Amino acid sequence: MKYAKQISSLGTETAFAVSAQARSWAEKGHKVYPFHLGDINLKTPQNIVEATMKAIGDGKTGYCPSEGILSLREALAYDVGQRRNVVYSPENVAVQPGGKPTIGKFIAAIMNPGDEVLYPNPGYPIYESQIEYQGGLAVPYRYIQTEKGFDIDIEHLKTSITDKTVALIYNNYQNPISAESSIEEMEQIADIAISNDLWVLSDEAYYEMIYEGKSRSIVEIPNMKERTVILYTFSKKFAMTGWRVGASIGPEKIIKIIAKLNINAESCTTHFIQEAMVEALTGDMVGAKEILSRLKNRRNVAVLGLNAIDGIDISMPRSTFYLFPNVTTIMKRKGFDNIDQLQIGALENANVSFCTRNHFGRPQVDEVDYFIRLAYSGISAEDIDEGLKKIKTYFEY
Amino acid sequence: MKYAKQISSLGTETAFAVSAQARSWAEKGHKVYPFHLGDINLKTPQNIVEATMKAIGDGKTGYCPSEGILSLREALAYDVGQRRNVVYSPENVAVQPGGKPTIGKFIAAIMNPGDEVLYPNPGYPIYESQIEYQGGLAVPYRYIQTEKGFDIDIEHLKTSITDKTVALIYNNYQNPISAESSIEEMEQIADIAISNDLWVLSDEAYYEMIYEGKSRSIVEIPNMKERTVILYTFSKKFAMTGWRVGASIGPEKIIKIIAKLNINAESCTTHFIQEAMVEALTGDMVGAKEILSRLKNRRNVAVLGLNAIDGIDISMPRSTFYLFPNVTTIMKRKGFDNIDQLQIGALENANVSFCTRNHFGRPQVDEVDYFIRLAYSGISAEDIDEGLKKIKTYFEY
Repeated sequence: MKYAKQISSLGTETAFAVSAQARSWAEKGHKVYPFHLGDINLKTPQNIVEATMKAIGDGKTGYCPSEGILSLREALAYDVGQRRNVVYSPENVAVQPGGKPTIGKFIAAIMNPGDEVLYPNPGYPIYESQIEYQGGLAVPYRYIQTEKGFDIDIEHLKTSITDKTVALIYNNYQNPISAESSIEEMEQIADIAISNDLWVLSDEAYYEMIYEGKSRSIVEIPNMKERTVILYTFSKKFAMTGWRVGASIGPEKIIKIIAKLNINAESCTTHFIQEAMVEALTGDMVGAKEILSRLKNRRNVAVLGLNAIDGIDISMPRSTFYLFPNVTTIMKRKGFDNIDQLQIGALENANVSFCTRNHFGRPQVDEVDYFIRLAYSGISAEDIDEGLKKIKTYFEY
Repeated sequence: MKYAKQISSLGTETAFAVSAQARSWAEKGHKVYPFHLGDINLKTPQNIVEATMKAIGDGKTGYCPSEGILSLREALAYDVGQRRNVVYSPENVAVQPGGKPTIGKFIAAIMNPGDEVLYPNPGYPIYESQIEYQGGLAVPYRYIQTEKGFDIDIEHLKTSITDKTVALIYNNYQNPISAESSIEEMEQIADIAISNDLWVLSDEAYYEMIYEGKSRSIVEIPNMKERTVILYTFSKKFAMTGWRVGASIGPEKIIKIIAKLNINAESCTTHFIQEAMVEALTGDMVGAKEILSRLKNRRNVAVLGLNAIDGIDISMPRSTFYLFPNVTTIMKRKGFDNIDQLQIGALENANVSFCTRNHFGRPQVDEVDYFIRLAYSGISAEDIDEGLKKIKTYFEY
């Protein structure tokens, strides 16, 4: 039997391999400290659970519109708009089964084969995968490490634009590096998008996972809302990764196209879950605040623990639940020249599991530093402290 | 802003327009008899609802594997296999958010642009849409009306095969026409698939919606299981259309590809719903039997009511919840030459809403008869009886 040739261009999330290694190590009787998980080991708030039960009881178990139920599209338009100082209406919202589906559908809506799309690298690996699978050229842009975190290398990004560039993927509050744009940087990205007439996919999965200060969205900048689709998800704020509900939010015409893609793909997103999301957005926020507060505590413990390691110097990110320390000094000390050695070594010598830079898009040719990525969303504060002490011993040896 | 050219090849479900017309007519104060709905107005069985609550309570709210949780893949492999006299293992199963996603993912896995795919027409409109959207040539095959229902026009189908044909979509227990293959017909389709080395997508959405006799699957025929992907859905048997859960079931290698497409599209299907589906498959079947029994009663009332109309002569289908009467005599009596006239006329004169042949793929050039499609899944037996009496008056006038 023959298969489609294009499948060979389809990427994946290689981080699943790290999960498999960790599981296999745990099955051998070791207590593994799971810093590799992008999942959240906290409960979904009870008011959301109750609203779900009620919606099932009310018979919200049949089909609903492909673009989502009106009450949820209204609630999302209001909530997402007011948090970004812009006005959205339900026509700007297409509900999705998660945050991720917006990536493939955005690209399907605006890219022709042979077109080029700029995307952050290191970054979420599905950007690269979907661009290439759909016949485009995935053009990476990069980050420069600073004292405060990471800046986008704007000058390099500008040189990557050609007359075939049609879109830029922007992931402020970034996975995996927790980069946060300054106002100036965000304006520079907006200038580039406007002057080159680019579409922007603004992946705002972590927009509300911010521990200090106020989130900013590129749609706030004049003339950006008209060319930007926001990737919205309920997964992080409400600890709902496995529920699979999110939305694409953007100009009416592209949202209509995305809703037509919904008709062809999944028909609609689970009806009663959509009903419960109205409660999530408009009901009691105690649960969401508790989630954020516990993650903030974990962040503080994790940054302290990492900085106690000789050779690691990491600043405190204000958002996401990831840390992306530069481990070049550790690599030299160990005599390693492949980051996989450090990842496997940490698992087998310190029982600590984490991802590396290699799990977030193809490394670029001119990279000289080594990075690992630790997630603190799936591990308790106590285990973060314990795990990082074990890793300290291994890294400093 | 520019959009992808390929979006112009993306089809839709035009039946949504019928829903909109019915809603608009109802808003004017009319009681509409909804024969247009492919949805089910019955409750999901209580044991499934309770299993859902339990799974949420047990914290099954985080990510799960893209191919589905092992316990559900095991339960599906066993249940689907034993009902078809074949052996499947969990490696043959990729869970999906509904039945529909299997269509696009199957085509993505096996078709290259320019390839030809045979599909039933009239048939589910997403076949045509996905084949053409993904750059293939959608080649329709047709049905011949008989005394007992509809037969596939095998000779015509054979003449449609070229050296570019890579797959055949087969929908036994067919939407919209309720066609059911004889063993001989199923063997002829299998022969064609084997001798031309074709993939088969066996859309078995209505496999268990059978009121008399025993369902048969094309995978039972030797050498077919190796080239067939089954579209499985929980939607019909358990009245769960809005829950969005189903599966692709087929050879291990193509299922691996489909699971990789899952990673790129929706990540995974709602975790706690998957847990509840284990209960659906292995728990108490009283709810599913009650659903089937109520639908059977509606079918009997509907066939009786239709045959009471002068000019309609329909046989009793053993499966699905659709009726597809030939209304050519009615059209002549009315002096209509466009089936839309009858559809709008029935709504405005008899308050009866239904779909027509035109909602199920592009009509073929040589069609001479006119057909309408009535669904009895979203309307009570009483309203079926009442509505068909009203339609009788309008059709016989």
